[in-house]
Amino acid sequence: MANLDLNGIFPPITTPFIDGKVAFDKLASNIEHWNRTGLKGFVVLGSNGEYVYLSEEEKRRVVDTVVQSAAKEMRVIAGTGCESTTETLRLTEDCARLGAHAALVVTPHYYAGRMKEAALIKHFTELADHSPIPILLYNVPKFTHINMAADFVARLSEHPNIVGLKDSSANVIQLGEILNRVASDFNVLVGTAGVLFSGLTIGCAGGVCALANVAPEECVNIFDRVKAGDLNAARELQLKMIPVNQAVTAVYGVPGLKAAMDMLGYFGGDPRLPLLASSGQERSEIEAILKKAELLD
Amino acid sequence: MANLDLNGIFPPITTPFIDGKVAFDKLASNIEHWNRTGLKGFVVLGSNGEYVYLSEEEKRRVVDTVVQSAAKEMRVIAGTGCESTTETLRLTEDCARLGAHAALVVTPHYYAGRMKEAALIKHFTELADHSPIPILLYNVPKFTHINMAADFVARLSEHPNIVGLKDSSANVIQLGEILNRVASDFNVLVGTAGVLFSGLTIGCAGGVCALANVAPEECVNIFDRVKAGDLNAARELQLKMIPVNQAVTAVYGVPGLKAAMDMLGYFGGDPRLPLLASSGQERSEIEAILKKAELLD
Amino acid sequence: MANLDLNGIFPPITTPFIDGKVAFDKLASNIEHWNRTGLKGFVVLGSNGEYVYLSEEEKRRVVDTVVQSAAKEMRVIAGTGCESTTETLRLTEDCARLGAHAALVVTPHYYAGRMKEAALIKHFTELADHSPIPILLYNVPKFTHINMAADFVARLSEHPNIVGLKDSSANVIQLGEILNRVASDFNVLVGTAGVLFSGLTIGCAGGVCALANVAPEECVNIFDRVKAGDLNAARELQLKMIPVNQAVTAVYGVPGLKAAMDMLGYFGGDPRLPLLASSGQERSEIEAILKKAELLD
Amino acid sequence: MANLDLNGIFPPITTPFIDGKVAFDKLASNIEHWNRTGLKGFVVLGSNGEYVYLSEEEKRRVVDTVVQSAAKEMRVIAGTGCESTTETLRLTEDCARLGAHAALVVTPHYYAGRMKEAALIKHFTELADHSPIPILLYNVPKFTHINMAADFVARLSEHPNIVGLKDSSANVIQLGEILNRVASDFNVLVGTAGVLFSGLTIGCAGGVCALANVAPEECVNIFDRVKAGDLNAARELQLKMIPVNQAVTAVYGVPGLKAAMDMLGYFGGDPRLPLLASSGQERSEIEAILKKAELLD
Repeated sequence: MANLDLNGIFPPITTPFIDGKVAFDKLASNIEHWNRTGLKGFVVLGSNGEYVYLSEEEKRRVVDTVVQSAAKEMRVIAGTGCESTTETLRLTEDCARLGAHAALVVTPHYYAGRMKEAALIKHFTELADHSPIPILLYNVPKFTHINMAADFVARLSEHPNIVGLKDSSANVIQLGEILNRVASDFNVLVGTAGVLFSGLTIGCAGGVCALANVAPEECVNIFDRVKAGDLNAARELQLKMIPVNQAVTAVYGVPGLKAAMDMLGYFGGDPRLPLLASSGQERSEIEAILKKAELLD
Repeated sequence: MANLDLNGIFPPITTPFIDGKVAFDKLASNIEHWNRTGLKGFVVLGSNGEYVYLSEEEKRRVVDTVVQSAAKEMRVIAGTGCESTTETLRLTEDCARLGAHAALVVTPHYYAGRMKEAALIKHFTELADHSPIPILLYNVPKFTHINMAADFVARLSEHPNIVGLKDSSANVIQLGEILNRVASDFNVLVGTAGVLFSGLTIGCAGGVCALANVAPEECVNIFDRVKAGDLNAARELQLKMIPVNQAVTAVYGVPGLKAAMDMLGYFGGDPRLPLLASSGQERSEIEAILKKAELLD
Repeated sequence: MANLDLNGIFPPITTPFIDGKVAFDKLASNIEHWNRTGLKGFVVLGSNGEYVYLSEEEKRRVVDTVVQSAAKEMRVIAGTGCESTTETLRLTEDCARLGAHAALVVTPHYYAGRMKEAALIKHFTELADHSPIPILLYNVPKFTHINMAADFVARLSEHPNIVGLKDSSANVIQLGEILNRVASDFNVLVGTAGVLFSGLTIGCAGGVCALANVAPEECVNIFDRVKAGDLNAARELQLKMIPVNQAVTAVYGVPGLKAAMDMLGYFGGDPRLPLLASSGQERSEIEAILKKAELLD
Repeated sequence: MANLDLNGIFPPITTPFIDGKVAFDKLASNIEHWNRTGLKGFVVLGSNGEYVYLSEEEKRRVVDTVVQSAAKEMRVIAGTGCESTTETLRLTEDCARLGAHAALVVTPHYYAGRMKEAALIKHFTELADHSPIPILLYNVPKFTHINMAADFVARLSEHPNIVGLKDSSANVIQLGEILNRVASDFNVLVGTAGVLFSGLTIGCAGGVCALANVAPEECVNIFDRVKAGDLNAARELQLKMIPVNQAVTAVYGVPGLKAAMDMLGYFGGDPRLPLLASSGQERSEIEAILKKAELLD
């Protein structure tokens, strides 16, 4: 199977809602805006896309919209992980048919205590055996309470249809251990902008960062400067972006990310319940953080 | 709204599969078997029912089958918790229409960090305001990584359409704190057989126990003896059941529970992937535990 | 080795300080006060005794004072657990010489990741082999981040000089599992008043409860009523005591326990730094809780 | 107060024992060996020094030995954190008198639930106010279960006698947040070799690394190459050292570190009980890891 080049920055894009319904036109216009920012592509149906709140039909239409709106050279990666193996495969096939280039598959996690190595190896191998598009593993212990350690990733990386990993653990030691064990064309993507600079300097191919929804150029800039060997500039930008990234992830979550998008020319809008929209007070705090980082005047 | 009497034992029933498809006839025959064991009713679409692996259509048919097969006096409680508020309400309405007497609603948990008090209060209040059947809260931190503390439960217990709680935390101090704060007709159900005796002696109305899938009479016996004040007999039976309960929950999980059902005259069958069926070795261990507890000759 | 009868209630007593120095006279007068409350004995140098803040010399003088002040029939149990095996044995020998009847030994825990079964078995076996007085295991995962599971306790319980366990995990399932596995004369003591009633009804010999510092008669009453089969009275008292117990443990900690002692006729005083004394606001809250539980007028 | 230059690599040295007694001559010869490896100085009485197993007298003699044996230009940092504020100050004064240049003070942690900001601020401020030598904060959540977040560190960094931090959290985002908030002459030392390269590239002054006990030249090399801007060489060496570092920390612990020292020309010896010496099997595994990393032929 031909390998996929994922060297670059991918935002795990948000899903816009108006009155609780997916606003496909707003999604398309966000994509068109992002098309001009130097990104390598998009991750759709990720955690920041509130995928757990979307019906199967909505998921398909969201992927379709992104594929249609993305610039031709953009890579579209669809989050297709469900709790059951069968449902995950079905959604992966749907996304492939709609034009996604790869599927990003989170570890099933409801029965976390039973998701031991044998069960997860079987799950991912079944998928990879049957998926028409390449599979990327998605490690996000913050949400799943399961960690994919280096040995596990290395073992799965040998499957010809498993071509990479998004690791959102923020564990740089683990990134190093993984890079020590996988082939050089296996795409290790750092999954959070908080360690984008560190992930890239230790050897990651690229990054999937919530921050890239609101600061795509800055993330691309960190990537470009690291690749050019201009460490000081890259570090400086990374340190400047840390507070923004904390705001749109750990501190204010998806609602905060959407609020920041609204301030920066994208359509953010409200999340679906039970996620609560950012309060006025929270929006003021987010605005101050964006101004301090010079993303906003 | 009239109150619901849930004093007694409820198994959170498993969902039988044959070749990966829901075996509705096996479900019906299990129910008929359980109808004769002294249970107060059934919890359907709970964690032990692999609800996260069922499609919406399968969920509705499972509830329908249980309602149709349950003896007339049985209370049927349907697990209707989804990640989004809207989807949870829709499934609750469907289950009400199919004849469920109450809905058991787990805390949304994917964005656990954002599921703070305000978000959860809004979620449960919205549901309770609009649900045609009474709501039971479902606290299962082992799976959700969120705990509903006593103050939170007490606050929600004041809603006229929230009539009880299944607490699977195994935290007896918390059960005491809750009982101290809620009205006496609020149904506090202990959610794991490991503390069935302790939950009942501290004042719980009843129990929802995975163990009751395989040892319904023993669970009912513990309930009856506590109510009759025969503490020694109840304790003795509780201590005897602890290893069985550990086996069908923490140690071997849902696959082990299903394996034990197969040994005891029910249809257990295999779980859906990625849950792996118990191995031959595990089945031997389970069999030995059932024999030692005199559930099997 | 003759067995020790520990059926009853033991407060893990606080250590009084005046101007940062141990106030031995206040300690003696507290003991004399407690002598008249129906307690079975005392635990000295436990977590509530701020043992980690005492020098070796202070520890010896504290034990000496307690032994001298305790009524003749009282059992004195000294906390002798240190990080190193050698230091623990030396302190145990000192306490034995001073007249302690048993030693309570916490799991070493600084290198928690290395304190696997083999290391801990060796530690406790070495101690038990050489200690002139019987050893009680002390399981307090809240402080040590290590749990002694039932199999581990059962294995150590076979040593003739290991005669019991204080389990402060508040895990009633685990208490049941332990009782299933140990001989009937092995003293299983429930280590927190929050589950005193539940521990005793499931079969524990007695309790070591911080609450017994401030409400000794109530704790003894719960014990006596459970033993007399008067469950309703025992449960009612347990439920009434839960808020007090939460206050003097989880909510306000050792400083809160000492503040409550001051309100109830004992000498509490301030803890050593870095523990901060309860603030005026906290004292008001504690006072309200004591009044609501009718411990204070 | 004059500032301390801690730009460089410090091993948190082990404490050698023979027959359970501190082997001061072996300690001195290890120091003499390390004096010739490019290190900036030594951390003595840290976690790797088994400080929790040493008596006060042993601690003083160990510090004295290190000060006497260290080359003149070496900085000696003594770990003086005890549970109580008073005891910590006394040990700090002792170490100052013996010639230590700074004190490294771990967060008190036994009563972790009470060690909130106010208590810890008071603890460190008291110390810093009275200590004759500068204080370094020591953040090691793996052992203490307490994390010092960036705001907390920033606040304490304003004290003129608190001159730096050893952060062993391996959390590179947090290192970035701290660097964003403290003055440029505040010494942020990365506390684990697993993120030495990442810590230095993000802007840390130096590193305190267990690995530097066995691979001092390699650690110094990573430091020198990062400072020289030779990122590729530094990264390559970092990746090569990760398995060694995992072995002598997370996997085999202090016993494994000591075993590796024995293989590499230092005196390691056995740890004190209850830490168990590495088994023959473990030593073989460690040897293989050292060979693979070309530290051993």
